[in-house]
Amino acid sequence: MMRKNHRFTLAARPVGLPKPTDFAYEEEDLREPGDGEFVVSVQYISLDPAMRGWMNEGKSYVRPVAIGELMRAMAIGSVIESKHPRFAVGTHVAGLFGLQEYAMSNGEGLMPIDPKLAPLPVMLSTLGMPGLTAYFGLLDIGKPVAGNTVVVSGAAGAVGSVVGQIAKIHGCRVVGIAGGADKCRYLGELGFDAAIDYKAADVKAALRESCPKGIDVFFDNVGGDILDAALTQLAPRARIIICGAISQYNNTTPVKGPSNYLSLLVNRASMTGMVVFDYTPRFPAAIAEMAQWMAAGKLRSREDIVQGLAQFPQALLKLFTGENHGKLVLQVA
Amino acid sequence: MMRKNHRFTLAARPVGLPKPTDFAYEEEDLREPGDGEFVVSVQYISLDPAMRGWMNEGKSYVRPVAIGELMRAMAIGSVIESKHPRFAVGTHVAGLFGLQEYAMSNGEGLMPIDPKLAPLPVMLSTLGMPGLTAYFGLLDIGKPVAGNTVVVSGAAGAVGSVVGQIAKIHGCRVVGIAGGADKCRYLGELGFDAAIDYKAADVKAALRESCPKGIDVFFDNVGGDILDAALTQLAPRARIIICGAISQYNNTTPVKGPSNYLSLLVNRASMTGMVVFDYTPRFPAAIAEMAQWMAAGKLRSREDIVQGLAQFPQALLKLFTGENHGKLVLQVA
Repeated sequence: MMRKNHRFTLAARPVGLPKPTDFAYEEEDLREPGDGEFVVSVQYISLDPAMRGWMNEGKSYVRPVAIGELMRAMAIGSVIESKHPRFAVGTHVAGLFGLQEYAMSNGEGLMPIDPKLAPLPVMLSTLGMPGLTAYFGLLDIGKPVAGNTVVVSGAAGAVGSVVGQIAKIHGCRVVGIAGGADKCRYLGELGFDAAIDYKAADVKAALRESCPKGIDVFFDNVGGDILDAALTQLAPRARIIICGAISQYNNTTPVKGPSNYLSLLVNRASMTGMVVFDYTPRFPAAIAEMAQWMAAGKLRSREDIVQGLAQFPQALLKLFTGENHGKLVLQVA
Repeated sequence: MMRKNHRFTLAARPVGLPKPTDFAYEEEDLREPGDGEFVVSVQYISLDPAMRGWMNEGKSYVRPVAIGELMRAMAIGSVIESKHPRFAVGTHVAGLFGLQEYAMSNGEGLMPIDPKLAPLPVMLSTLGMPGLTAYFGLLDIGKPVAGNTVVVSGAAGAVGSVVGQIAKIHGCRVVGIAGGADKCRYLGELGFDAAIDYKAADVKAALRESCPKGIDVFFDNVGGDILDAALTQLAPRARIIICGAISQYNNTTPVKGPSNYLSLLVNRASMTGMVVFDYTPRFPAAIAEMAQWMAAGKLRSREDIVQGLAQFPQALLKLFTGENHGKLVLQVA
């Protein structure tokens, strides 16, 4: 009996916030795996701000998703049928399986997952790409030193919450910027020294108050006015990590460049872009270290799990309205 | 008989381009030097884009010039009267003597000048702060490697022309951006591989054509649209040096931030600010190396000398209209 696969393809390039009609929900017959192939039953799909960029035309660090093509996404699943010598039925794997129920694979580009290490959604969160982005961006580019003041925007998100906790582990003073009292309370629970609610506070004034010696490391997930506010409060030789700019991804006008960028000159500071895929060879060691921190209770992970593949278009919007609490994950079944 | 000193003080904080009425031309009696003091007859005064920044209020890498205070400037002169054991009459010195005919000094912060090394105006140009800015910005932050593509804006200026020539000495392909056919012709004479006339060309298209493998190092003196154009053409792991932003110094509207800054993320590139005064201990070695290059004919210097202290307000404007050809220097006598 042939399996039916359901999937979302990109139907149109979104203008501003993605609309449900920018995606097509399709049904197809799933073919049998050939020699060297296997079928993955997709269990959890990671919903990430970066996906918005993949929907746009133009040069980036990966090619855009084509119109009519399966929408790209990181996901975790288990092998349910295999003609591959190294991927037995029951094996858990992570990869770019996309927005669908079943993926056919020959094993290329997949990472085996140890389901005993942590619950599967955590493997898409703190022990997955978001956690790894935080780890390498903060430690390799930010180079925080004990006593430094580290500020992170999007601080309650999947990347930001890990940035702040790792900075605390390294003896830094940590200030998080997030939207809303709930998220700011959560930052307190995670051990942040201060939290700024950008929806309620004057971010520039709040940074001045909470970073009296200036910002040594600014990890930016947000861009726009928050990046500009952080630039006014840099310490000499500050390091800014440009990880994302979620405030700008749905712009229909040009991206707002940081007006205060000349603060880099005044403070001899730097602003550096990062993409986590550059650090692939070091993923296993970083995951092992973060798993130890989790086991020791020093690093906490929170996931916001939405049920049902069909919820994808609505669920994705939570990222841009800031409604999600923790890493946004779609549970397929 | 008492000497009369003439000098320019800052009369008002300029709005936009500095006007003659933003300065006051004053006459004062010059007192006799006390013990440990000496009188410098100022011969050549350096006119630099950075002076525009010193006229503004607000935090920067040096304190602003106060209203009523002598206008700050680097200059070179000779000791004409001395009660200081180490500064004999006839000694040449460089320092922040400001816009005036005579300066009283106790020797603090001065650099002795060897007038046999090069003509005095060159000591304010290629062998002075502009040349040193080029040297340390390019080599320490840009870290060019033979075969790299190096792009410099304000390329015909005192800093830019040295950046390009040092990059050539290090085996790079060098593209200069300057305003007007004359300046672009001059870049050709200096050995630049390509010159882009931003007044005549579409800079973005011209950079695409002249940097087919992307820009490895961008040394920016200009900011604004030219920085944005360079950001669209970065090579992976490009280094941008933020040295200045002359296009923005006379803005009466907020500085134009670089809209394309997310190219830093896509290309894992960095943007770093620099201030030459951080490298003071290494000045003598850098000047010695550049003097050797000059003697070997590998590094050429050009100065645009305006006669007469009283010409200061008009002469300064040449920097912002782009009328100067080479380092702008005011000859006092």
